[in-house]
Amino acid sequence: MKNKGILYGIGVGPGDPELMTLKAVRILKECDIVAAPESDGNDKTATNIAAEFIKNKTILYCNMPMTRDKQKMQESHELAADKICALLDKGKTVAFLTLGDPSIYSTYWYVHRLVLERGYNAQIIAGVPSFCAAAASLNMALVEGSEMLHIVPASHNSTDEGLSLSGTKVLMKAGKSILDVREKLRKQGKLKNAALIERATMPEERVITDLDTLDNPTGYFSIIISKEN
Amino acid sequence: MKNKGILYGIGVGPGDPELMTLKAVRILKECDIVAAPESDGNDKTATNIAAEFIKNKTILYCNMPMTRDKQKMQESHELAADKICALLDKGKTVAFLTLGDPSIYSTYWYVHRLVLERGYNAQIIAGVPSFCAAAASLNMALVEGSEMLHIVPASHNSTDEGLSLSGTKVLMKAGKSILDVREKLRKQGKLKNAALIERATMPEERVITDLDTLDNPTGYFSIIISKEN
Repeated sequence: MKNKGILYGIGVGPGDPELMTLKAVRILKECDIVAAPESDGNDKTATNIAAEFIKNKTILYCNMPMTRDKQKMQESHELAADKICALLDKGKTVAFLTLGDPSIYSTYWYVHRLVLERGYNAQIIAGVPSFCAAAASLNMALVEGSEMLHIVPASHNSTDEGLSLSGTKVLMKAGKSILDVREKLRKQGKLKNAALIERATMPEERVITDLDTLDNPTGYFSIIISKEN
Repeated sequence: MKNKGILYGIGVGPGDPELMTLKAVRILKECDIVAAPESDGNDKTATNIAAEFIKNKTILYCNMPMTRDKQKMQESHELAADKICALLDKGKTVAFLTLGDPSIYSTYWYVHRLVLERGYNAQIIAGVPSFCAAAASLNMALVEGSEMLHIVPASHNSTDEGLSLSGTKVLMKAGKSILDVREKLRKQGKLKNAALIERATMPEERVITDLDTLDNPTGYFSIIISKEN
């Protein structure tokens, strides 16, 4: 393990700052530098969630382009890792903000792995995943007893496969293809037992329990929960 | 909605008290009564996790027998709901402690549903699920990009079906059958890419990355994470 600095990947939870953990808050207060993703669209959701606890901190924004261009992604991750490792070499503690839980579809993970591979100390602080918050907003259980729970990235080709599984399905990352996902649910006769939550626990939260009424989806932080018929 | 009281189902997270959310801590401090499960084995894990924040509280223990006898379970849930509703009728705020996140395999959920069905106000406070904490302990991502994540209750018959799915598998609730689960993983050639965590983030946490060395499993809060080969 190279010298003194340490990188923390901090899950800030789904949106409500109160759903941050005590550990996340403590590390944000104690750290030297806060790092945060900044995409081309300038979305600073994670920074906004943690705002109250990072008021006096230097923030290192790392560009994380919303792209599937692997080379472009790789370059941005390497650049972020370079910046962070330079701080770790100076013995700094860096806390990188990430939405939900860092182990579930976080862009941050690629940076985390690079920093680990370069021989630095890097740890994950678990957070509340958005789908748990979505279930709470719907006042429903995700799974009981012997049911399986499947988390399916709906922006990819796995949606059909995922929807056919037995148990509860959570469709994430649908984004602009959310209406396509609705049609897939309709075709499989699963529309009635599905609900959608946009921006769970954020001020603009929207819950749609009748997916037929979904006429103006933003695609932002949308989650569909599909229960067994 | 009947009168004034409210029931909160509080996810206290996986074990480390610092992984409780700010919201859970606030509600525990503000509530009138803390309710907690007590099984035949007298396990008070949830109460221990929250201990620091419920020092001056009256605690209502609700017997939740570890049984698959449906009638016995139903009776215990009804009894817990009776006690809680009596408090809600008096306008009390009751906070029921539950491990991890309340929407994922929590025994509490049955009580929550009964209380809702009886016309009372009951809300869920999401928590960090144990499998997110387990991934953090292993310093690994659960899922990236287009991978699916499957949460499989390994104490039930769904284990074989669950293990055959593509993506990352999280095997929960294996308990005493954990060695059977290992043999299933071995038969499917998945032992090498699997790891086990007992009591993630608790003081007695144990991480086993080579499942062949697992000779003395306690079964307590064991989680196996099986990654794609």
